[in-house]
Amino acid sequence: MSEPVRLDPRLEARAAALDGEDPLASYRSAFVDAPGVRAYLDGNSLGRPLLASRAALTDLVDHAWGTRLIRAWDEQWMESPTELGDTVGRVTLGAAAGQTVVADSTTVLLYKLTHAALDLRPGRTEVVLDRDNFPTDRFVLEGIAATRGLTLRWISPEHDGGVSAEQVAAVTGEQTALVLLSAIAYKSGELADVPAITRIAHRAGAVVLWDLCHAVGAVELSLDADQVDLAVGCTYKYLNGGPGAPAFGYVAARHHDALSQPIQGWMGAADPFAMDDAYAPASGIRRLVSGTPPVLAMVPMRAMLDLLDTVGMPAVRAKSRALTAFTVEVADELLASYDVRVATPRDPERRGSHVMLEHPDFRRVTAALWERGVIPDFRPPRGIRIGLSPLSTSFAEVAVGLTAIADELG
Amino acid sequence: MSEPVRLDPRLEARAAALDGEDPLASYRSAFVDAPGVRAYLDGNSLGRPLLASRAALTDLVDHAWGTRLIRAWDEQWMESPTELGDTVGRVTLGAAAGQTVVADSTTVLLYKLTHAALDLRPGRTEVVLDRDNFPTDRFVLEGIAATRGLTLRWISPEHDGGVSAEQVAAVTGEQTALVLLSAIAYKSGELADVPAITRIAHRAGAVVLWDLCHAVGAVELSLDADQVDLAVGCTYKYLNGGPGAPAFGYVAARHHDALSQPIQGWMGAADPFAMDDAYAPASGIRRLVSGTPPVLAMVPMRAMLDLLDTVGMPAVRAKSRALTAFTVEVADELLASYDVRVATPRDPERRGSHVMLEHPDFRRVTAALWERGVIPDFRPPRGIRIGLSPLSTSFAEVAVGLTAIADELG
Repeated sequence: MSEPVRLDPRLEARAAALDGEDPLASYRSAFVDAPGVRAYLDGNSLGRPLLASRAALTDLVDHAWGTRLIRAWDEQWMESPTELGDTVGRVTLGAAAGQTVVADSTTVLLYKLTHAALDLRPGRTEVVLDRDNFPTDRFVLEGIAATRGLTLRWISPEHDGGVSAEQVAAVTGEQTALVLLSAIAYKSGELADVPAITRIAHRAGAVVLWDLCHAVGAVELSLDADQVDLAVGCTYKYLNGGPGAPAFGYVAARHHDALSQPIQGWMGAADPFAMDDAYAPASGIRRLVSGTPPVLAMVPMRAMLDLLDTVGMPAVRAKSRALTAFTVEVADELLASYDVRVATPRDPERRGSHVMLEHPDFRRVTAALWERGVIPDFRPPRGIRIGLSPLSTSFAEVAVGLTAIADELG
Repeated sequence: MSEPVRLDPRLEARAAALDGEDPLASYRSAFVDAPGVRAYLDGNSLGRPLLASRAALTDLVDHAWGTRLIRAWDEQWMESPTELGDTVGRVTLGAAAGQTVVADSTTVLLYKLTHAALDLRPGRTEVVLDRDNFPTDRFVLEGIAATRGLTLRWISPEHDGGVSAEQVAAVTGEQTALVLLSAIAYKSGELADVPAITRIAHRAGAVVLWDLCHAVGAVELSLDADQVDLAVGCTYKYLNGGPGAPAFGYVAARHHDALSQPIQGWMGAADPFAMDDAYAPASGIRRLVSGTPPVLAMVPMRAMLDLLDTVGMPAVRAKSRALTAFTVEVADELLASYDVRVATPRDPERRGSHVMLEHPDFRRVTAALWERGVIPDFRPPRGIRIGLSPLSTSFAEVAVGLTAIADELG
């Protein structure tokens, strides 16, 4: 076994007290045990598996796949993209049924939704986006802009990756077709003002597409109430869907009549088994589907959605706020003297469920931490992200993780 | 239990003798048991799960996902699209390493490969394709043709869905950018002359994209030797990858320098974790990847590829030929008197691993068969497909299936 992490007794007691008071602490035993892992602080990249998901996979193999076989398509799987999408929408997005679908990867669904958004605003030539957004968002948009002859209007965030409503207003106008931003910045963890930015886009006559990858399952969202047009997100972070689980996409019902998408496939056709006709799209959100739904890969997220539904997003968000607050507090105590910078907003209302710490040595430190079973992730050039999954992360793990960082810097 | 299927004793004995002589019979016990299923004849739509795949899923949850957690991306998953692609290529496609990738759905990968193919032949304006091809192939091409201003040159097969080299030659010329066809027709099961049609495309200066959905894992393929340009296929039929398992794509190495694709994502970038740069594609086949690889959904096909590698495709093909021959023989004996037509070529060299039977009452008959645990599938307007998975289908199942059809027609 690698070198243990020795906690200051007072810090250990504070973490234990917080865990003792945590009304969600009992849910930690719902996850598969991870021998040798002292602190898992990267649920914002890959959420841990639930024991219930493990059982559900075996059940799928034995029953729906293994015994019902092809009959399971008629019995349950054909509707899975919209049925599971509705659950994602209801439990985590504040979205009424019929507006959310589970399909593809985040990148592919972002590509489809971007084309769909642009087709909703024909004639307009500009897209507003964030220079610090996640690479795949930028890459997809660069490719589409080249093909469709669009101008990308880049925002350069002034404060740790967060984009302000004022910055968006300054570059949004009568040529703006689409505003594409992340609700929570993947580096800084800053939570954008979703309703205000959406209103700014609408005042200019544009539509907004929110990337919810780091938000879904961690913060309360209200897409319908906020009049969001389109959204996309991933399910392997706070929805614990497993490595490479499919994405979800949301399109507000008011846009469905005009909804197009570029990858016309049989599973998004009005009658997938007609076989002889030309392509006629399914009505509603279903038309976003292209190929055969990834049924097996949809299994693990179901158990997590059940759990989130039981717990409720307000309680999840409260735990998340408490974890990020404790992380910032302990970072100030243990790491400030090593010139570690907290690059996440100190106002808990303005952050999601991870905390970004910065130091020039953090690439080396991350490698050393992993060897000791302390697992955050590193984001170049100098960031360690402390990811805090509300249902699986303990306050003790935060204490262990930050103590280990101090050890490596000391 | 539903009404049993009573076999003619001589037919039962013939089937038993064939099963007794079958050198691959022992592999049937490698699949998950299906209680109540008397004859599974739809492995060409959804292959049965292997017991080893069931175990591998649990192992992934417990170890790589559950314990290695995010570290598993560095340790093994980042390379999975090309590592597993190489295995698909070596075991089933006759493809040297570095030319095959596992990603997305068949529809999405077909979309990417079609754009890639068209970009290899800039200035050419026509695509040759088959009116009887699987709907998603037609739908994807219709969408791309509308966007790129292409003319689709449709071939109408004269004989049960098979496209002849002469038909392709008649519509292929100096404006042809791409010839898109299925190696095995999804309805009739006819095997196209892949090398001859590929040569015809090349003589016209076009590239060829073969849809291998019904061919991979069922017939021997030699993409490298046949000078195929591009190919796509699915893994949930004869590769037993599970419902909605990801697709594979092949691009011959000679095209890699000029290879483009429309969905530029972080996982196809030269350095996915550089995070700050503009999109620069990875070298080689890797650039076809867009989003996060569907690691969980890649698990089941691995065990089947291991099995195919052990058995070898020549033995698999020999069993397939024997199964289709027995099916045609028994159909002639039991079903010809009900005016059931065998719509698959009688020459075993000209067919894949399913046999299409046609009768006006087959929609009703299929529903009745499913109730009795006899499971082929129905393809409008009048077809029952008898799918024969070489490693999991017995001759006894063929006898049961065709006897049950005779019962329902009688």
